[in-house]
Amino acid sequence: MIGRLNHVAIAVPDLDAAIAQYAGTLGANVGAPQDEPDHGVTVVFIELPNTKIELLHPLGDNSPITGYLDKNPAGGIHHICYEVDDIMAARDKLLADGARVLGTGAPKIGAHGKPVLFLHPKDFNGCLIELEQV
Amino acid sequence: MIGRLNHVAIAVPDLDAAIAQYAGTLGANVGAPQDEPDHGVTVVFIELPNTKIELLHPLGDNSPITGYLDKNPAGGIHHICYEVDDIMAARDKLLADGARVLGTGAPKIGAHGKPVLFLHPKDFNGCLIELEQV
Repeated sequence: MIGRLNHVAIAVPDLDAAIAQYAGTLGANVGAPQDEPDHGVTVVFIELPNTKIELLHPLGDNSPITGYLDKNPAGGIHHICYEVDDIMAARDKLLADGARVLGTGAPKIGAHGKPVLFLHPKDFNGCLIELEQV
Repeated sequence: MIGRLNHVAIAVPDLDAAIAQYAGTLGANVGAPQDEPDHGVTVVFIELPNTKIELLHPLGDNSPITGYLDKNPAGGIHHICYEVDDIMAARDKLLADGARVLGTGAPKIGAHGKPVLFLHPKDFNGCLIELEQV
């Protein structure tokens, strides 16, 4: 069911410092910050030859990243995103196997403009998993 | 400097359950468990079309994964591994920029039989980063 690893998302407390570090010290191809007010985040994509790193920083007063950074002030790996061909078929298979889908269970439009779902970390080895239909 | 994302490593408390979940529910291509006594881990590689997931489970009495699972009983994303062409040049650049390399600073031979280094999570947004020379 799962296909490519679309991205690894890293929550960062200081976005400018993280950009400078990935572009400078680590010599990676770092994009421009993009505000995503609907998701409460500012995102920066780092293009690696085979996948992407997504830096996440809180935007606004109700960001889902604020609580994460409160618990992990240095930042940390927030989630990993696997691609799927058919997100409704994926959801139905997951629910049939007893896994929990976060929120209402209906896909939302993610930061890339494509349908996404998040799976409960307690059902997946402590990892927050995003599924994105591509 | 950094190239491909070689793998994302996930520490798991129940290796058989994680294998069954990735092979069954998530429908991925899961390899056979490999004991790595020199590293204190049993590893399972999950081959995605563009990169790998590495499941990590403690092996023996002094596993580096035991402490992580004590703190994170459900498991979690343990580290990410970026490929580099020249690990000594990478190390020298990192040290010159003030980043800390774990251990003696000399590369070790990793679970894939190639030279690796680990970087201090506090210097990299709370992420444990492995560099592997490929």
